Amino acid sequence: MNSLSIHCNSHTYPIYIGKDIFQLVAKHINTKRALVVSTNTIANHYLKKLQQALPTINSDVLLIDDGERNKSVTTWQTILATLAKQKHHRDTTLIALGGGMVGDVTGFAAACYMRGVNFIQIPTTLLAQIDASIGGKTAINIEQGKNLVGAFHQPQAVCIDIDTLKTLPTREYNSGIAEMIKHALIADRDYFEWLEQNIDSLLDQDEHTLQYAIKRSCEIKANIITQDEQDHGIRQLLNFGHTFGHAIETASNYELLHGEAVAIGIVKAAELSLTAREGITLNQDDIQRIKAILTKANLPTSYSNTNALEAHMQLDKKIKNNQQQFILLAKIGEAYIQNDTTVI
Amino acid sequence: MNSLSIHCNSHTYPIYIGKDIFQLVAKHINTKRALVVSTNTIANHYLKKLQQALPTINSDVLLIDDGERNKSVTTWQTILATLAKQKHHRDTTLIALGGGMVGDVTGFAAACYMRGVNFIQIPTTLLAQIDASIGGKTAINIEQGKNLVGAFHQPQAVCIDIDTLKTLPTREYNSGIAEMIKHALIADRDYFEWLEQNIDSLLDQDEHTLQYAIKRSCEIKANIITQDEQDHGIRQLLNFGHTFGHAIETASNYELLHGEAVAIGIVKAAELSLTAREGITLNQDDIQRIKAILTKANLPTSYSNTNALEAHMQLDKKIKNNQQQFILLAKIGEAYIQNDTTVI
Repeated sequence: MNSLSIHCNSHTYPIYIGKDIFQLVAKHINTKRALVVSTNTIANHYLKKLQQALPTINSDVLLIDDGERNKSVTTWQTILATLAKQKHHRDTTLIALGGGMVGDVTGFAAACYMRGVNFIQIPTTLLAQIDASIGGKTAINIEQGKNLVGAFHQPQAVCIDIDTLKTLPTREYNSGIAEMIKHALIADRDYFEWLEQNIDSLLDQDEHTLQYAIKRSCEIKANIITQDEQDHGIRQLLNFGHTFGHAIETASNYELLHGEAVAIGIVKAAELSLTAREGITLNQDDIQRIKAILTKANLPTSYSNTNALEAHMQLDKKIKNNQQQFILLAKIGEAYIQNDTTVI
Repeated sequence: MNSLSIHCNSHTYPIYIGKDIFQLVAKHINTKRALVVSTNTIANHYLKKLQQALPTINSDVLLIDDGERNKSVTTWQTILATLAKQKHHRDTTLIALGGGMVGDVTGFAAACYMRGVNFIQIPTTLLAQIDASIGGKTAINIEQGKNLVGAFHQPQAVCIDIDTLKTLPTREYNSGIAEMIKHALIADRDYFEWLEQNIDSLLDQDEHTLQYAIKRSCEIKANIITQDEQDHGIRQLLNFGHTFGHAIETASNYELLHGEAVAIGIVKAAELSLTAREGITLNQDDIQRIKAILTKANLPTSYSNTNALEAHMQLDKKIKNNQQQFILLAKIGEAYIQNDTTVI
């Protein structure tokens, strides 16, 4: 079992990475009550195991509908109404057991119920384990765009049990690998080369390869977010591939998975990097390497509906004073923020 | 013109108290765009004046329906959708022009849009000027209770223009006086005696009396909230009269104004104080003085529907580990927190 410490403004909390580690959750619940939020599919596999690991907690359970479309005001309201109806008070703890959608909407409900209660993340998708559950960003989607409404609200702990990946559909597993590749591209060339060499055993879910990759990705993300909790500066590097990615995801009407849209966004942002400024060392060979590893991970590298993409590019949180901001690559392993780039 | 500085974790901001001071708002908007949220009634009186005071800001306007019932998820969603449709980005500023309801729902939208944008409070009711607009508590009501969903989100400035009180209905003006009496009771015996002596000129909206009372109330509240921004300790003293008050307000189906419900709550909490613990000096004469000043301000001092009250007492944010917490008076000018009090 590995663990990392996240030092944020309000408190310090651990990320645990290992097998069969649900029992670690209990020591981060200093309250008598809890509400577990999960989906039917995930609850079928892991709810009983979680409840057995929390024998002294009076935990209620709310099952919500799966899918990015349900990361909505309606689901958020359902969580809040459940807490109120079951008379949870400010000293309750919410436990998000599921993928990024469950974590984001549960975290946002925890941020808002009685102006903020504790919550714990038990991410069960690779994407959530190395990205969505780390860093305290919670959100819901509204009609006009993804993650437009939310809060910064840090969990009390993140419990990454790799056993939960055994039931994850392959397409979703691969979607998570897109964010690992992103972490490597923006911050660590050695990790990128390690991923190139180990992509097959990572796709096979080899235990040691997987634990190392999750740990390295969490370290990279943690290192960045603790420097910029509220997303005003360096944290924006994590958005590499996401300016395009979010627009592609919305334009596809969420038929593309988040990681799939990000994979395309990574290629687009890398290609844009080639022409964005003088003196960068990224070259066409690097683009081919990036496309090659994404393709090996069964991820898409292009998107055809440019009209829909353009419409959705206009409403992006990274726009400041109407200048579009992009995260670009100086080289494999180093990203930078470029303002006012003309695109599409 | 008076001003106070509020030092909170995220930043320091001013409270301005004076006449004809809308132009002070402009220097706290460091963005090109803004969204003014107000109601029809208030906008008819003051919107044009506000817009004239902000000649360089590209400000959109959203008028929402008045009344505590509209401090709802629906209104909050309308503000968020307006921001998104009109393509406001993270660098926008929301301006709440209205009473506590407008400030609370606008502040909560500001807290959540793109995980937090700036906002400015221009409170136009006495209640909002001395209470709701100060301290960064934002919230909406849900079916199960008042202010159950919200965030701590501090404004960039609070602009209290006493001219706006001229159009305030008398019943609402008096409702604000209830919170002034509360401030005096929990923290400042001299202020209580000053209020007893000056209640007539305060009811007449004498300019100097009014400015002094607003300033003194804001000072008391600011002094408490800067010691405990997140409401875990001393800030709870401000809830004096509110454990009963909120329940009464909900039980009356919002037919009682907030300050009217709090007035009854003040009497109930003061009466409870008489028997709560040994050694307090509050006595029956004090209760009579409290009732007398409330009555002079045309505020109610009792509530008959105890069944409805009891049901609504059970869901209160001040309940911790199922023990009911009350704010009680040791004497006029000094309150304390009492856990596990048996009531009703």
